[in-house]
Amino acid sequence: MTTNNSPLLNKQDNFVNRHIGPGEQEVNEMLKVTGVSSLDQLINETVPPSIQLTENLNTGKGMTEQELLVHFRSIALKNKVFRSYIGLGYYGTHTPAIILRNIMENPGWYTQYTPYQAEISQGRLEALLNFQTMVVDLTKLPVSNASLLDEGTAAAEAMHVLFAARKPEKKNSNKFYVSNECLPQTIDVLKTRTEPIGVELVVGDIDSIELTDEIFGILVQYPTADGEIVDYSKLFEKAHEKGIYCVMAADFLGLALLKPPGELGADIAVGSTQRFGVPMGYGGPHAAYFACKDEFRRLMPGRVIGVSIDRNGNRAYRMALQTREQHIRREKATSNICTAQVLLAIMAGMYGVYHGPDGIKAIAERTQYLASTLNSGLKQLGFDQLNKNFFDTLKIDTGSKERLVELKKKFETEEINLRYFGDKYIGISIDETVTETDVDKLLKIFGGGQSSSASVNGSGLTENLKRKSKYMLHPVFSDYHSETEMLRYMKKLESKDLSLTASMIPLGSCTMKLNATTEMIPVTWPEFASLHPFVPREQAIGYTEIFKGLEDALSKISGFPAVSLQPNSGAQGEYAGLMVIREYHKSKGEGHRNVVLIPASAHGTNPASAVMAGQKVVVVKTMEHGDIDVSDLEAKAVQYKDSLSALMITYPSTHGVFEESIKDICRIIHDNGGQVYMDGANLNAQVGLTSPGSIGADVCHINLHKTFCIPHGGGGPGMGPIAVAKHLAPFLPGNPVIKTGGEKAIHAISAAPWGSSSILLISYAYILMMGGEGLTEATRIAILNANYLKARLEKFYPVLYSGTKNRVAHELIFDPREFKRTTGVEVIDIAKRLMDYGFHAPTVSFPVPGTLMVEPTESESKYELDRFCDAMISIHNEIKDIEEGRADMADNLLKNAPHTALDIASDSWTHKYSRMQAAFPVAGLRDSKFWPAVARVDDAYGDRNFVCSCEPVESYVEEKV
Amino acid sequence: MTTNNSPLLNKQDNFVNRHIGPGEQEVNEMLKVTGVSSLDQLINETVPPSIQLTENLNTGKGMTEQELLVHFRSIALKNKVFRSYIGLGYYGTHTPAIILRNIMENPGWYTQYTPYQAEISQGRLEALLNFQTMVVDLTKLPVSNASLLDEGTAAAEAMHVLFAARKPEKKNSNKFYVSNECLPQTIDVLKTRTEPIGVELVVGDIDSIELTDEIFGILVQYPTADGEIVDYSKLFEKAHEKGIYCVMAADFLGLALLKPPGELGADIAVGSTQRFGVPMGYGGPHAAYFACKDEFRRLMPGRVIGVSIDRNGNRAYRMALQTREQHIRREKATSNICTAQVLLAIMAGMYGVYHGPDGIKAIAERTQYLASTLNSGLKQLGFDQLNKNFFDTLKIDTGSKERLVELKKKFETEEINLRYFGDKYIGISIDETVTETDVDKLLKIFGGGQSSSASVNGSGLTENLKRKSKYMLHPVFSDYHSETEMLRYMKKLESKDLSLTASMIPLGSCTMKLNATTEMIPVTWPEFASLHPFVPREQAIGYTEIFKGLEDALSKISGFPAVSLQPNSGAQGEYAGLMVIREYHKSKGEGHRNVVLIPASAHGTNPASAVMAGQKVVVVKTMEHGDIDVSDLEAKAVQYKDSLSALMITYPSTHGVFEESIKDICRIIHDNGGQVYMDGANLNAQVGLTSPGSIGADVCHINLHKTFCIPHGGGGPGMGPIAVAKHLAPFLPGNPVIKTGGEKAIHAISAAPWGSSSILLISYAYILMMGGEGLTEATRIAILNANYLKARLEKFYPVLYSGTKNRVAHELIFDPREFKRTTGVEVIDIAKRLMDYGFHAPTVSFPVPGTLMVEPTESESKYELDRFCDAMISIHNEIKDIEEGRADMADNLLKNAPHTALDIASDSWTHKYSRMQAAFPVAGLRDSKFWPAVARVDDAYGDRNFVCSCEPVESYVEEKV
Repeated sequence: MTTNNSPLLNKQDNFVNRHIGPGEQEVNEMLKVTGVSSLDQLINETVPPSIQLTENLNTGKGMTEQELLVHFRSIALKNKVFRSYIGLGYYGTHTPAIILRNIMENPGWYTQYTPYQAEISQGRLEALLNFQTMVVDLTKLPVSNASLLDEGTAAAEAMHVLFAARKPEKKNSNKFYVSNECLPQTIDVLKTRTEPIGVELVVGDIDSIELTDEIFGILVQYPTADGEIVDYSKLFEKAHEKGIYCVMAADFLGLALLKPPGELGADIAVGSTQRFGVPMGYGGPHAAYFACKDEFRRLMPGRVIGVSIDRNGNRAYRMALQTREQHIRREKATSNICTAQVLLAIMAGMYGVYHGPDGIKAIAERTQYLASTLNSGLKQLGFDQLNKNFFDTLKIDTGSKERLVELKKKFETEEINLRYFGDKYIGISIDETVTETDVDKLLKIFGGGQSSSASVNGSGLTENLKRKSKYMLHPVFSDYHSETEMLRYMKKLESKDLSLTASMIPLGSCTMKLNATTEMIPVTWPEFASLHPFVPREQAIGYTEIFKGLEDALSKISGFPAVSLQPNSGAQGEYAGLMVIREYHKSKGEGHRNVVLIPASAHGTNPASAVMAGQKVVVVKTMEHGDIDVSDLEAKAVQYKDSLSALMITYPSTHGVFEESIKDICRIIHDNGGQVYMDGANLNAQVGLTSPGSIGADVCHINLHKTFCIPHGGGGPGMGPIAVAKHLAPFLPGNPVIKTGGEKAIHAISAAPWGSSSILLISYAYILMMGGEGLTEATRIAILNANYLKARLEKFYPVLYSGTKNRVAHELIFDPREFKRTTGVEVIDIAKRLMDYGFHAPTVSFPVPGTLMVEPTESESKYELDRFCDAMISIHNEIKDIEEGRADMADNLLKNAPHTALDIASDSWTHKYSRMQAAFPVAGLRDSKFWPAVARVDDAYGDRNFVCSCEPVESYVEEKV
Repeated sequence: MTTNNSPLLNKQDNFVNRHIGPGEQEVNEMLKVTGVSSLDQLINETVPPSIQLTENLNTGKGMTEQELLVHFRSIALKNKVFRSYIGLGYYGTHTPAIILRNIMENPGWYTQYTPYQAEISQGRLEALLNFQTMVVDLTKLPVSNASLLDEGTAAAEAMHVLFAARKPEKKNSNKFYVSNECLPQTIDVLKTRTEPIGVELVVGDIDSIELTDEIFGILVQYPTADGEIVDYSKLFEKAHEKGIYCVMAADFLGLALLKPPGELGADIAVGSTQRFGVPMGYGGPHAAYFACKDEFRRLMPGRVIGVSIDRNGNRAYRMALQTREQHIRREKATSNICTAQVLLAIMAGMYGVYHGPDGIKAIAERTQYLASTLNSGLKQLGFDQLNKNFFDTLKIDTGSKERLVELKKKFETEEINLRYFGDKYIGISIDETVTETDVDKLLKIFGGGQSSSASVNGSGLTENLKRKSKYMLHPVFSDYHSETEMLRYMKKLESKDLSLTASMIPLGSCTMKLNATTEMIPVTWPEFASLHPFVPREQAIGYTEIFKGLEDALSKISGFPAVSLQPNSGAQGEYAGLMVIREYHKSKGEGHRNVVLIPASAHGTNPASAVMAGQKVVVVKTMEHGDIDVSDLEAKAVQYKDSLSALMITYPSTHGVFEESIKDICRIIHDNGGQVYMDGANLNAQVGLTSPGSIGADVCHINLHKTFCIPHGGGGPGMGPIAVAKHLAPFLPGNPVIKTGGEKAIHAISAAPWGSSSILLISYAYILMMGGEGLTEATRIAILNANYLKARLEKFYPVLYSGTKNRVAHELIFDPREFKRTTGVEVIDIAKRLMDYGFHAPTVSFPVPGTLMVEPTESESKYELDRFCDAMISIHNEIKDIEEGRADMADNLLKNAPHTALDIASDSWTHKYSRMQAAFPVAGLRDSKFWPAVARVDDAYGDRNFVCSCEPVESYVEEKV
């Protein structure tokens, strides 16, 4: 090497400076306003010195963006992309190029937040309503949600719903009967999810099921894992007679040709929509669907998009049934789901819009036709194919283990993956990407080089199994089939939504930071996107390297030696952590420990997860200034010392403060036999400065979509890996198909072995490019940004909680409740008014009702923070105008917010303020104004008139599909 | 193969249906309105049967999008991406990921049209102003245009300007002296461009130049092609004393460190901005810059973006000096340039915004430092490096031919390309992508495995050559360095511009059709994007296959046997065609033929190109109904029979009509010794139905950015290959570095051998996916769409020209001139009012002043056409309101259009119509409204106050850079 170490060479383009918002000069200005002389001083005043790390975070030196791409390219090439016919819930699919580039790879879509603020989310709400409509149509069940995490957990949620919905006469029934022909990963997730809540899982042959009183529900697969299509209508009829509910896990593409669950009598249908244009990505992310009869509507997990009206009476979309949302019903929860797979559901929905009913049907028919062709060819070659009725999947009896091994070798040589099972069986699933040439190749290999040319014999389906009913009749599925129209439709929806491309989204507890382009690029490389999760491990060497590298980095960051990447959401991470703790207690013969202490200020998912894990929730008090009441904690810990399982704690607290007593708290729990579970929601305030491990916790989950840059995608995907102390490592979750997890692994938490593998690339890229120093700097600036907001705004809005030195962590709570008394202005009015200024509201009423929690993150520049402060101060003046009588109590800028362009253009302007005040309250808006698509949405109307699919257009029903 | 030909398999997703707007049902409805019973009938009434092809276009069966991507992938892998240090005007560069994804790969940017309609183009106008500011700053010359096609043609344009600008005392000077150290392709283009206009090109050693009276200008390269940096200030001083102008072709990155042309005394500076983040793409597209002293402003070729104000007095950008635009000064033209490389100039400008002055300087310094490192190492290894002053390029004397051959072999084995020249010399150019490791590797190979570790000796530059002046001080180059801010800035600009993502852009003669995503995807694959145009041909086998395939297809489509892909714009194609004709005449001993007949209705570039090719333009009359006056044509042809060179004709005519007499016209020209040049602007009406070859022409150019889907990119890139009859094939243009063209090739038309190679992929992909049948169907629907507009709108706006059966071709002219008389409403008012309806205006006042020419293209659906018709009818009603006294003659919806959101929100609304009428004249706008960013732009003000760079911000000048 040339040894010249010229500073000129070090002036490389540094990713850290791209990720972090404020530049050097801005930081200095902000420190001044914040009242400190250095960033070090601020950090020392914020993070209790007792918990600060003494060594620098050693995750390496940051790479440049170019180095990262070269590095990932070399890793990608270690994955081998074989042709996979494995099936089992994952299928090849063509992502339409226009959807790939303009949704999946477009920050206008992927940086959107969950559509809580409906007025600036009409685009994705409409896209999700399309998804729900498609689900309702294809399943023929009247109610759909906006997606769940994966098919396995969707099936578990169905079990939960039905368990909760048992009729009075079935209150003692606790058996859930699952066909042994269900997908193995679904069965495994159900094993995890049933036992803790007292449900007995029975896995058996559905043909010989005895419909006893103990059974409250059954689950069947359609087609079965092996590919057979069974007419379940008789079974469901008998079950219903016994008060037993019926769930179908149904292939979404198959439903285009098969009699739908609703017509077979199912109560709930679940499944994956992956094969509607979403890459396999070695396991995810994909959107699962969940549809049910109307009677289960209020028990339904996840989010439902509904139709309502705005204050002007115009149609407006919003999340329906929000009473169940975010503010999850804590101890009474039946589900901890507080997310969806929005981006992927939108992609699947757009796939439906793009292809329409004719196109979807054609894809399904072609798939089945090629399966039939293969079937005929195999017969001619003398193979037994065992499925009497099939859609896309054949089960081939090779006759002997030897024959199977011999064939397997040949297929592998040709870079083809099939499913090999039960000693002598081969499974082959055909998908959209399979061509005639592919089928010929398969037959040639089966025939030992000999080609087959049998003509197809029938459709593979008996008449009673065929679908007769139409679907996707709404015009949205017919109007946008040219690429030009499709593009304009997607862009129209995109333009209605406020994303990070337009302004900051300062959501407390959500960490809406930069999702850098370079982090996103590898996700859609075929070497990462096209892998089936069940390919032999030696074809996924690249992924293994990614997992290993990411696990190591998360270990260092969390201070824990072991990591599981499986949980595919934060809530799944919580649940996984608690289940691991539970298993640990059991392993020590203390399986009776079942009390979980949870502070009153905790996020609603905490108690929900605890209940799902079979735990009893005991609430610990919070003190007036926001900290945990340590003496109450100690009292409860001692009181329950014999049954104490764990404490769940968020750090810094959900109030945005680093509690000084955290180490004591951990000690108290340990002293009383419990484990400390640290919620990772606020990890962005810890990285490099302190860590859950060093503080004394035993396990934490890590929201990769918060701290580690996975984009929110409008409400999913997310990832929630857990990191654990050494004594918990043996219990990390496994997978029934691909070995992973600890040596005494609990059953699967999520369907795929490593959750949504493809988006792990994003977090790993972020960590590699930032380097240990950059990650730490990000934390420091996140704290600076929050304290800068405090310094600028506390004169106008009281800050609810702060630490002993009057500093907040990475987020803070502004308290405008006093204004309600003096002016009638509520927190929601401020939130809506912020839209007129082009901002997304901070978190509203969490964790403290009536307040706003703001988290700026390190990626926001001083320029943007100032813009936000100016808006907040201007709104404060608007409130003062009411308070001091210059503005009307009822007809004012806040109560009527947001104002749409139509409002402003209205010929009859009767308000007591001007149009300019309404629409252009600050000068900066003149250069660029984001208009809310609808006025304030009427939630009450929507709740009274529940509609979760595109409104029926009667006139279209008569059209031929 | 299985022989089952089930219709189920043919239900493949068909690209033709994605590209063409109207579906089957829509087509039937439209035929009814158009008054025909079938599409065949319409075509027969439109295209004269005498010229219809009798055989189907045989460019193959259309591929699906997936098949195309697989096919192109396999072709891409035939290109070998070596590390290239060749230099000569093309350099490796890192395209910032955020610019790659959000501009280059984003239809919101690449589907924009040229910013003639300033009010809905403020985003790209601002981006181009940034580009111009950067050019002005780096060159230190006060005037810049918005880019030219490439460095070679930019140098030729400079020569043209200076030739036209000769002072009275130099009127007889006709020598242009070019340093033999200029880039070989630049010299070759100059050879082409000088001789026809009577300029003598002298290529010589600049050190021994004799500044005679005959010389009117000189061109030097900075650094020279071999890498030496020369202080030209003395030379320029002496030249100026003799009235000789001086042009510098200067490396754009080098200017960050080198004394700039303006300070050296240059009159004009040109160069490529490719290395500012634009991929090499095997030759293009890239943006060249052109900067000059103020005295040449009005002679400057190309487009200039200027600053003006709108009717409300707010700042607004627009194209300045438009008198020279589009309506090019025909016979008096000095340039036929009517385009730019907008998309690439925007990318380069954004690269400047992203890196800022410090970042650009750091990149330049690192580049030079590594060159110095290499230099020191080579010295230590005993090599002679000949450049005394260098920036990035070294010239190494290997001592002997044998040594060079031996080294070349070693480098090739290591997949490294260097420049080998002059028997024993090696050229190495360092660029942004080169790392220390790369330099070490080079040295190791030079040293035969032995490593070198010399320390760097000086900066490679003597003090007098170093730049002292600052640059890029405007805040735009400092404010957006975090990725978040950069993203928001780009998105803000994007949101101000109306592109095809929002609505149709029905520009007559411009064919704004779908640019399909799948066509775009391969362009940025590294195997196509990263190739240097001068790599050995065996590394570009993939590209060769693309060229061959595309040439074959264009041959079939045009009916001509030979094609040149070199001309990188339509105007370049025209020029190339005329130069080939000229050479053909010369080869027959008829070099005196120099008269070109051009119909009065021709596009202004036609006469301009003819003048550049040294031809005399004779205008042929047009008859009242728009056709060429054949008897006038015949008379002129006979009159000039001894000197007739060619006829230039557009077909269908610029009036949008298939002239019946076209075959006669061709015969007349041929009978009188001339050749027929067919302008390809309207080829979209011919493909598959007729062809220039079958009609009887001898050459045509083909606007790939019109008929063959290369996106307009906001005003470039484009491509204008020419297709020629057999007798012209030998003269197709060549390239001095890479052999291409005919066996008696004329000199280069454009700098790169195959023009903007990487975007040829787009056109070829389109052709392959459409297949012959699909291409023909596209033409038929393009004609249907135009005739449907005619049927719906002719009651409201007279249609100026139509064929004998009252049909128009693929475009038509609406004539609203009568309204001016009755209401004062001019065509421009209608154009601006269309913006309020969310539409981009059709072509205004071309070819007939006061009219609108509309070309809907086949990609627009009936839905969109109806939306446009509804808008036009609504505007017609608004005009009637004036005519009939219901609206004011002065203060009306049209005269005040477009209306901005600020207008609408204004508290003082004094207009005689309502806000709703202004902003929401039709219901559809309520769902989605595109707001013009500024009100009507005041062109006169801008012309009076010429500003072509970001306004100086004095306060920033003091800041340190």
